[in-house]
Amino acid sequence: MAKCSIFFHALVVAFVSGRIASAAGTEVDGANCQLEVPEDAVYKNPKADLSDRVADLLSYMCWDEKIAQMGGVGGILGQNSTYDAAQYLDRAKLHNGTISPGSYLNYAKDAVPVLSDLIVASKKEHRLGIPFVHIGDAVNGPTLRGTTLFPATLTMAMAWDLPLYTTVAAALRDELHACGITWVLSPEVDVARDPRSGRVGEMYGEDPWMNGELAAAYIGTVQEKDSDGFMKVATTIKHYVFGTSTGGVNQGSILGGKNHIYNILALPYINVLQKVTPASLMPSYATIDGVPAHQHKFPITRSTPPTTRTASTLNDAGIQSLEAGVELELAIRFPTAFESLSGNQTVEGVAGNVNEAVSRLLNLKFELGLFDRDLSANTTALTEVLRSEEHLEANERITSESIVLLKNNGILPLSANQKVAVLGPLADVVNTGTYAAWTNAENGNLTFLDAITATLGSDNVKHVKGVEITSEENSSIDEAVAAAKDAGIAIVVIGSVAVGYEDSLVNERTDGEGLTHASLKFPGLQGDLLSAVIESGVPTIIVLSGGQAFELSGVAQDSQAILHTFLGGEFSGRALADILIGKTNPSGKLTISFPAYSEVNPVYYNHEPSDWQAAGAIQFPYLSHNYLYPFGHGLSYTTFNLSSPSLDKTTYGKTDAIKLSVTVSNTGSVDGKQVVQVYFRQQVAPLSLLVKRLIGFSKVDVPSGSSIDVGVEIRVAELGYWLEGEYRVDSGGYEIFVGDSSDDNSLSGPVAIHIE
Amino acid sequence: MAKCSIFFHALVVAFVSGRIASAAGTEVDGANCQLEVPEDAVYKNPKADLSDRVADLLSYMCWDEKIAQMGGVGGILGQNSTYDAAQYLDRAKLHNGTISPGSYLNYAKDAVPVLSDLIVASKKEHRLGIPFVHIGDAVNGPTLRGTTLFPATLTMAMAWDLPLYTTVAAALRDELHACGITWVLSPEVDVARDPRSGRVGEMYGEDPWMNGELAAAYIGTVQEKDSDGFMKVATTIKHYVFGTSTGGVNQGSILGGKNHIYNILALPYINVLQKVTPASLMPSYATIDGVPAHQHKFPITRSTPPTTRTASTLNDAGIQSLEAGVELELAIRFPTAFESLSGNQTVEGVAGNVNEAVSRLLNLKFELGLFDRDLSANTTALTEVLRSEEHLEANERITSESIVLLKNNGILPLSANQKVAVLGPLADVVNTGTYAAWTNAENGNLTFLDAITATLGSDNVKHVKGVEITSEENSSIDEAVAAAKDAGIAIVVIGSVAVGYEDSLVNERTDGEGLTHASLKFPGLQGDLLSAVIESGVPTIIVLSGGQAFELSGVAQDSQAILHTFLGGEFSGRALADILIGKTNPSGKLTISFPAYSEVNPVYYNHEPSDWQAAGAIQFPYLSHNYLYPFGHGLSYTTFNLSSPSLDKTTYGKTDAIKLSVTVSNTGSVDGKQVVQVYFRQQVAPLSLLVKRLIGFSKVDVPSGSSIDVGVEIRVAELGYWLEGEYRVDSGGYEIFVGDSSDDNSLSGPVAIHIE
Repeated sequence: MAKCSIFFHALVVAFVSGRIASAAGTEVDGANCQLEVPEDAVYKNPKADLSDRVADLLSYMCWDEKIAQMGGVGGILGQNSTYDAAQYLDRAKLHNGTISPGSYLNYAKDAVPVLSDLIVASKKEHRLGIPFVHIGDAVNGPTLRGTTLFPATLTMAMAWDLPLYTTVAAALRDELHACGITWVLSPEVDVARDPRSGRVGEMYGEDPWMNGELAAAYIGTVQEKDSDGFMKVATTIKHYVFGTSTGGVNQGSILGGKNHIYNILALPYINVLQKVTPASLMPSYATIDGVPAHQHKFPITRSTPPTTRTASTLNDAGIQSLEAGVELELAIRFPTAFESLSGNQTVEGVAGNVNEAVSRLLNLKFELGLFDRDLSANTTALTEVLRSEEHLEANERITSESIVLLKNNGILPLSANQKVAVLGPLADVVNTGTYAAWTNAENGNLTFLDAITATLGSDNVKHVKGVEITSEENSSIDEAVAAAKDAGIAIVVIGSVAVGYEDSLVNERTDGEGLTHASLKFPGLQGDLLSAVIESGVPTIIVLSGGQAFELSGVAQDSQAILHTFLGGEFSGRALADILIGKTNPSGKLTISFPAYSEVNPVYYNHEPSDWQAAGAIQFPYLSHNYLYPFGHGLSYTTFNLSSPSLDKTTYGKTDAIKLSVTVSNTGSVDGKQVVQVYFRQQVAPLSLLVKRLIGFSKVDVPSGSSIDVGVEIRVAELGYWLEGEYRVDSGGYEIFVGDSSDDNSLSGPVAIHIE
Repeated sequence: MAKCSIFFHALVVAFVSGRIASAAGTEVDGANCQLEVPEDAVYKNPKADLSDRVADLLSYMCWDEKIAQMGGVGGILGQNSTYDAAQYLDRAKLHNGTISPGSYLNYAKDAVPVLSDLIVASKKEHRLGIPFVHIGDAVNGPTLRGTTLFPATLTMAMAWDLPLYTTVAAALRDELHACGITWVLSPEVDVARDPRSGRVGEMYGEDPWMNGELAAAYIGTVQEKDSDGFMKVATTIKHYVFGTSTGGVNQGSILGGKNHIYNILALPYINVLQKVTPASLMPSYATIDGVPAHQHKFPITRSTPPTTRTASTLNDAGIQSLEAGVELELAIRFPTAFESLSGNQTVEGVAGNVNEAVSRLLNLKFELGLFDRDLSANTTALTEVLRSEEHLEANERITSESIVLLKNNGILPLSANQKVAVLGPLADVVNTGTYAAWTNAENGNLTFLDAITATLGSDNVKHVKGVEITSEENSSIDEAVAAAKDAGIAIVVIGSVAVGYEDSLVNERTDGEGLTHASLKFPGLQGDLLSAVIESGVPTIIVLSGGQAFELSGVAQDSQAILHTFLGGEFSGRALADILIGKTNPSGKLTISFPAYSEVNPVYYNHEPSDWQAAGAIQFPYLSHNYLYPFGHGLSYTTFNLSSPSLDKTTYGKTDAIKLSVTVSNTGSVDGKQVVQVYFRQQVAPLSLLVKRLIGFSKVDVPSGSSIDVGVEIRVAELGYWLEGEYRVDSGGYEIFVGDSSDDNSLSGPVAIHIE
């Protein structure tokens, strides 16, 4: 078979801010390496203007020094915080841009001093004193143990609690900063439109606008400046663009035309950029209308048409990516592409782009204070900041609020001394997602089994795994059914695992980056276990675990209750146990819709009217809705009544805010939290209208028997859409819907308004 | 809920040929209706120039006469070739463009005289003598009984026999012409990229280039001129564009960007237009990047950006469609949209477009000879042409060649006196597709059960339905298993039905226009029947029926043989029986790939490299290939050896033809037909390359023990692709693969060539 064309699949970061207009000099040989650098060089002066410092520093740099900034040293720390010095030196020779933590099993107290020493040394030993920047993934928190282990992104989004999420982002930021990690590869705003993708658990959900709201809060918080004016931690918004790739595959093709991309896939970015400026942007692994995202000028610099090319050599790929705006790769190939150019490829030809790329990388290092701060490990911060009481408390709250009660026929909450059989292969697993500092080989008493045993007492809990996660052998389903009959109530904990690459369960994964689960059925024999337990007649509570939707048609609907915990952190098991016994009233709401059947796509609520088979038309399997549980759905132990919304007026200008008020009454017998969700639809538009779009939400805590007025502000400027690259908010009629889920039956209204 | 915006969903036809540069006068009131028409008016002169005749006729027409040409009278004939005269007159008042046959259950001998009389009368009674044009669907032949009943489009494509298909197209044309039907709504070149779509059976298959080859042959043949220079039958290429809609839904959104649309969805049109000019084009029901296809200027006139709008009134929708190039609707709304304009909509504003539309419609009526020929029913032609010996023979041949043997472990062919149990609800059904003149209420001895009983003898055939098609009740699976055990071999005939709206099985449909089958599993309890029979241990032959792929993983793989008959015509049952006993050696090849599981998409062979989960990456369910049976696959009762291809040279110019020669040897014991399939791949290109593309094929009949040299010509100009609207054939390296299916293991090569 032929040699395939290649392009950069590895992580690459391009800066969002505009390119510097006049590039610095284009030194093309090693001459500058001999340039004497004066003691009082401008770039060394913390009081000098930032852009002057960057330009000055660049003027002293020779070619190899420049291209070395565009790569990094990744994964250098093995377990036990050790590293191979010879290998490190070999990589660090031409890769001076970034350094990243390596093994996720290292403890912060051990790894941070080692990494900090390397960074300090990199600064000291670099001819011009340019240090590494410490960059890392941070989906569940820093990828070092001894830090707070938060749930993954999708899970936290299910809380629908923007102030709480902002608090968590601040905690996360402070733990990262304490570890010396000043650049993170978050937030991931990809619109989760394909339930088959293995990365849904890393995303916020299926609503473009909501993803932007949460990401803007995250970025604004994480990039906050410290008292010295240094950015605390830089963020990376990603993956530009992704969300509806062919087959749900991470590197699959994205077919979308311009209208689709601007209105759906790129909308979170647009929403974010109206509020905050992320320090960097990561292209997706996908192709966009046939052009690899890393070589696509359109999404990064917005110049058209794309002139980049897929390539047959590393040099070509590097140059094409560079020309498209890519400025850094988190691996060792990008600088290598520019090390030895040949043929009609010349240093002169790429020097301008290299200077621009390096300027912005240096600019960020200055902004983060890396030239001006002491970069040694801060042991005080490590002790005081990591796992602080406030951080753990915020973590516990958001974990509690993120668990979604999908179904409850009244079996929940359980009484505090209920005897239960805890069944299924996920009961004794901490299912974090791929980017968490945790291994299931460690016994941390953090699993649901640990928590429910502590809660109900070991005499009341009998655990039988019944089946393995993915294996189709060695089942003990009969034993599980017997335990269920003996206990009288079964809690079946099933799903899919997405864990780190060093986790003991890594080979059991069907979910996570690089994975695709075309089927949303349960892997292995888990479905058989569920069927056997339910068909035995024992009242069954299904607990789902995994960063995805599952197919819950059929026998699962004969259960008494269904809860989903998604990808959890250290409090997931305990929070779930507290919900089961009614100590916590569940308040999570879905941010992804659950299809009725695996094959039924699309399921997302915000589809074009013609995308779902029309009522009356024949669909096999026969469905009235594509979803079984819609976006926004989540039950409580109490009942709420939402009043019709009242608006401050009915006609608005293009820049107005619509002030909407809803009275939420807790009509049940326990206190609880409810999410007021506001959707809208434009009556007539040049494009095929989405059936509805979320435009506001607010979570409110309402004591039993009380009523609370909730105000939600809709920004008229956000009601618009993109047509052929132009944003427009049309004059005319709009409709506002309010309710507690996206399902039509849950929404009151519409209230008609007019935009002038 | 709010009023939805509306747009024309009904069938609409726009002409492909360029717009007439200077429109005729824009008479805006009824004044022209008073214009005296001289006896020697230019348009009445058959010897005058065509364009002069059109312009002259238009100059006498008033507004209502013009807009009346843009609509038609549809479905006027009920069963028994009768019609409601009052209803007809009411519709015909403002709809003088087209007339179509109505009930598919009418016999040509009865209906054609009635329809012809209406057409003759329409010409006589029209102030200017403009007749209706008789237009109709023709997937399986004319939609009148007493004509030859061919298989549906997908089925005939499976024969991979271009000369034979051309013969069939000529037969089809002559039957249409004999019926007075001079305009057909074929060919349907939609690229069958979503197996969930209910219309796959009407399409050719998943390869854009192949669809274009077959459609070009069809159009060239059907539009052939008669001895008087009149076009015999006009064609309609459709649906521009469709093939990868969201959800597989007929009206769903198409996301494709420009590169995707030109290289995949529009490629059949481009291929066709390089060879022939279809008389008309039908936009799809879908939205394209958010714009309804009927209001999208881009695909029809190729001007960008689209400025059309979805609409809130019929007037708006009509005007927007008209502006986008739509010129005729096969229903009664389009003229109505222009009958009474109001507000800022004026007759003056749309008159130019109406004149253009009407000019082209009249032009076609002249080209078809409708002004100059006798339009009375031709009873001689009805007797001599319909169901002629040649037509039936061509039909039988293409039906035989279209049946695909997917699997055979040696059980086939059966001996001529084999005892069999014929099971399943499709055994006694003629499964034609939606657009066929047939009903299963009629006993025509055309089913497979009829044929196999006649072939093996009634003593050897025991039929038990076992289950209904879709019902989940009233099964007799036990009886079916008993019959299987008694016979020793089971033939299980299962699938999905797509039949006409007047068929007795219409309520059993899960396939066909307007239907979506997200699941490719068997409807109802058919899967249970199959499992029970196979698990009983009786050797089982699965016969599939339906215009779609089915999920054949699992128990189906424990069968001894699998055949697919798709949507058949009158010879389908007999052709299958002949194959089962070895009287015919099967030679059909798939033009659609069969997924391993329903959920696994995409399955088409010509995907981007990154669209399938990479080998080594984890996919659930676990697969090495997305397909179970690939495009091009089909078995024979003999064995063939294909030599490596020899080429006439290795370097070619941009307009050259590559002459490729392959020796096909029949190494088995029976005569057989083999399809030489030629694929190619460009080594490096600006766009993400498809893994391979079909570029040539040839079917050859090889006697047992013989070898035949097969020449296939590849046109270098067809190796190119579209980038941002520009077509290009790159200089550089290409690879040629030859084999008997698209699967890598079936292909020899690659042979490297160079394009200068």
